[in-house]
Amino acid sequence: MSIRSNFVRLLKKQVSIIKLQKKCSHSVAVIGAPFSKGQKRRGVEHGPAAIRSAGLIERLSNLGCNVCDFGDLHFSQVPNDELYNSIVKHPRTVGLACKVLAEEVSKAVGAGHTCVTLGGDHSLAFGSITGHAQQCPDLCVIWVDAHADINTPLTTPSGNLHGQPVSFLLRELQDKVPPIPGFSWAKPCLSKSDIVYIGLRDLDPAEQFILKNYDISYYSMRHIDCMGIKKVMEKTFDQLLGRRDRPIHLSFDIDAFDPALAPATGTPVIGGLTYREGVYITEEIHNTGMLSAVDLVEVNPVLAATSEEVKATANLAVDVIASCFGQTREGAHTRADTIIDVLPTPSTSYESDNEEQVRI
Amino acid sequence: MSIRSNFVRLLKKQVSIIKLQKKCSHSVAVIGAPFSKGQKRRGVEHGPAAIRSAGLIERLSNLGCNVCDFGDLHFSQVPNDELYNSIVKHPRTVGLACKVLAEEVSKAVGAGHTCVTLGGDHSLAFGSITGHAQQCPDLCVIWVDAHADINTPLTTPSGNLHGQPVSFLLRELQDKVPPIPGFSWAKPCLSKSDIVYIGLRDLDPAEQFILKNYDISYYSMRHIDCMGIKKVMEKTFDQLLGRRDRPIHLSFDIDAFDPALAPATGTPVIGGLTYREGVYITEEIHNTGMLSAVDLVEVNPVLAATSEEVKATANLAVDVIASCFGQTREGAHTRADTIIDVLPTPSTSYESDNEEQVRI
Amino acid sequence: MSIRSNFVRLLKKQVSIIKLQKKCSHSVAVIGAPFSKGQKRRGVEHGPAAIRSAGLIERLSNLGCNVCDFGDLHFSQVPNDELYNSIVKHPRTVGLACKVLAEEVSKAVGAGHTCVTLGGDHSLAFGSITGHAQQCPDLCVIWVDAHADINTPLTTPSGNLHGQPVSFLLRELQDKVPPIPGFSWAKPCLSKSDIVYIGLRDLDPAEQFILKNYDISYYSMRHIDCMGIKKVMEKTFDQLLGRRDRPIHLSFDIDAFDPALAPATGTPVIGGLTYREGVYITEEIHNTGMLSAVDLVEVNPVLAATSEEVKATANLAVDVIASCFGQTREGAHTRADTIIDVLPTPSTSYESDNEEQVRI
Repeated sequence: MSIRSNFVRLLKKQVSIIKLQKKCSHSVAVIGAPFSKGQKRRGVEHGPAAIRSAGLIERLSNLGCNVCDFGDLHFSQVPNDELYNSIVKHPRTVGLACKVLAEEVSKAVGAGHTCVTLGGDHSLAFGSITGHAQQCPDLCVIWVDAHADINTPLTTPSGNLHGQPVSFLLRELQDKVPPIPGFSWAKPCLSKSDIVYIGLRDLDPAEQFILKNYDISYYSMRHIDCMGIKKVMEKTFDQLLGRRDRPIHLSFDIDAFDPALAPATGTPVIGGLTYREGVYITEEIHNTGMLSAVDLVEVNPVLAATSEEVKATANLAVDVIASCFGQTREGAHTRADTIIDVLPTPSTSYESDNEEQVRI
Repeated sequence: MSIRSNFVRLLKKQVSIIKLQKKCSHSVAVIGAPFSKGQKRRGVEHGPAAIRSAGLIERLSNLGCNVCDFGDLHFSQVPNDELYNSIVKHPRTVGLACKVLAEEVSKAVGAGHTCVTLGGDHSLAFGSITGHAQQCPDLCVIWVDAHADINTPLTTPSGNLHGQPVSFLLRELQDKVPPIPGFSWAKPCLSKSDIVYIGLRDLDPAEQFILKNYDISYYSMRHIDCMGIKKVMEKTFDQLLGRRDRPIHLSFDIDAFDPALAPATGTPVIGGLTYREGVYITEEIHNTGMLSAVDLVEVNPVLAATSEEVKATANLAVDVIASCFGQTREGAHTRADTIIDVLPTPSTSYESDNEEQVRI
Repeated sequence: MSIRSNFVRLLKKQVSIIKLQKKCSHSVAVIGAPFSKGQKRRGVEHGPAAIRSAGLIERLSNLGCNVCDFGDLHFSQVPNDELYNSIVKHPRTVGLACKVLAEEVSKAVGAGHTCVTLGGDHSLAFGSITGHAQQCPDLCVIWVDAHADINTPLTTPSGNLHGQPVSFLLRELQDKVPPIPGFSWAKPCLSKSDIVYIGLRDLDPAEQFILKNYDISYYSMRHIDCMGIKKVMEKTFDQLLGRRDRPIHLSFDIDAFDPALAPATGTPVIGGLTYREGVYITEEIHNTGMLSAVDLVEVNPVLAATSEEVKATANLAVDVIASCFGQTREGAHTRADTIIDVLPTPSTSYESDNEEQVRI
């Protein structure tokens, strides 16, 4: 018998010993939300395509997730929406997009999926969180972002709604938020203690005021510098999960990362998260076992200087999402749907038959 | 009444509620010091222009500082200064530049300003610190740099005076420093316990000897790796401010940062401060309330490979200086002269009049 | 007497005072191992030349090391080695290369040198460690790498032997490793508690299984994020040197660094060591005084996008090796063969003769 055929025999044996086993028990719904009217720069509507092109679906499948791709939502622009636009821009268009997304997220979560929303701009989080809360009223939110996105329509310097979704979500802020056309379909679903921010480093004055005066928890880059990302996550979970297990909604703006890592985004701010800090956050969230929905927003392929920058930013988005669903730095990155629980052993016959032959 | 005019009314209300308030109580004097004869590479004399172009004055004004721009100093080259130059290069020219700067800094500090010197090369710090000490004899120095700049004229390998200013400043070293032409106008104004180094990673043998044998405090990159930047700043302030409040002179060489962040400089050394560590240092110095003068030196636009590198380095310099004067990562970066102490509330009339109208 | 000649006199005095003293007591053998058959990408055989071009020999000499350059080994390709290659690729060629290297390393260590092997791919470590162990049977191994390189010939997904050397080295794994042609000349020389991994972030499923089930110590990037590199090194030394001093074999794969720092390598993985973490590791190893051999592998100049990337990667390799032999961030980088133990003092005659003359 040739040595070659012995090898082949060994390998066949190996296949029978390695047990295939799902590592990820999640059923994941992926919803593309190519929406950009919450801010003024074109291109963020191509975010879902960029993230899909970077291999998201395959990566999640390889992790053992059962992936249901809901495709991309279609959003309409409400006609004459500029009329309401002296300050807050495109309110009906954004409100409608959020309504459409909320219904889809609610449906996905209701069907038992963990829901991944691919933005699109961060105004969408009003929709995804509202929809998520329809199924899970006791959810909590981890908001990873360079910005707090908590201006009210009365404090926003830019009028862009991607800088305001949290003000619509918090019950305590409602006496400060005027009724905006397009948003009457939803009631605020969060209390101020239900949200924790991570990665902040660019706050408008009113946002700073709100965070401090309403005692909203946040870990800015300075906090991360002081206490380290491990401690930040411990304190985050202490607050959100300390008394009881609750579904987690992760709303992750790619601009939380340093612009050197995620250049393809609309409002980059220097001094952001390292790759390692970013995936540490999502590894820890996965480890709680409580992740119920994820937004990954603000990937804008049009704003990159080169195609390498688009690829880097989109790969980063995929890594963040994959870490949410069990990709670890201590396990396999690629074919991780296999977990080995017995190590293959050379066959005895092989050893006795061929020992002499294989020595040189 | 149209919804549009209601919005406008609301916003007028808002303006009356947000109180404008100065965040920064500093009166800041900015002195350009376009000097390059303390080292051999051309271009560092364009540092002040690069830092100004990156928007320094506007940034400080937006922080609420009262900025007095003293413009750029004019430095003359002393004729035949090469004659004294067998080892120490351009001593009379450097000495004269330092004298001119010292007078200006002394004047500015005497007039109640916090003084910002824009280099130019680091030999200037002999002038700025000497001038500062004329007004504040009990000052202390935080020297943030890849290099210790503490060679004596008898140990300098290069002869460049930008590698020697600290040896001229320390009383304890004076028996090792020969009288150098150009420097007789000043006496050393620091004791060895008045200075702390942060960021060192490239020391000449004699510098290493001096730091250890004279027991001068320094936190090298290795120390920062070991204890973290938070602890480094705590220990720095313990030493310098532990027993009494004293004016702080911050002498910040842009090459303290990693060359990936600050490429436009003359003597870059790999393995430097991150952006976050750099601004943490200056945030902490601001928080002491004791900052009295700053040098920001060694930005050399000519040495960058691209205009992006010049811009990145100059922006970094502006961020460092702005952090010294109250720019925080938890507050506003841009229009930070406003502090909000009441959040605008939708007008009652608006709500009752238009509630139906604004719903979709 | 002219001032110039006074300066010259002073400097002559200086030379007599500064004592030249070796900082490094190592006698270092440098062995080039331009071998690439442990993996499939061409170019890693040019690693030794790239590292030499970056000035390795001069840097070690400047540190005071007595450097014996053994030149580059010559490796032959075993004919018809593909016949054994249905899964494990080039087994006889790799086995023979390791045998040649083992003999050379054994000879070098036996002659009292600390041995530096420049790869080449990481399959070589089977040779260098085996050769080292022939002289130092009680050695321990610190394996710095993005990958664990511990697949067995029965679990390897790629068949590349650079992903398997550790499985051949560990006694406990031998019942899982079939006899591979080319490797019968060597017996495994390590026990599982003799090795510690640092930097892991890309493990195959079987590797993860082996590390966990055989209780092999490893510090992944996640561990480093959690506990910091200082603690990682403390725990590493606790395990390896806690009970007794033993020779250390450092096997350093350049891909342990982040790809942004070391792009010229075959299997880069995002999220790696920073420059500062990498040199901290080697500084600490140097500080133990127990370093006995080093592999620096997987520098592949052909895979870089630009010549700057080649240079950056090779410089990094040189910095890692130089840190192993006493280069510190608190001492001199360049002319570090001098240690000063007296600081030069201006001559009295000079001061009295010329004091007036040198003042301006």
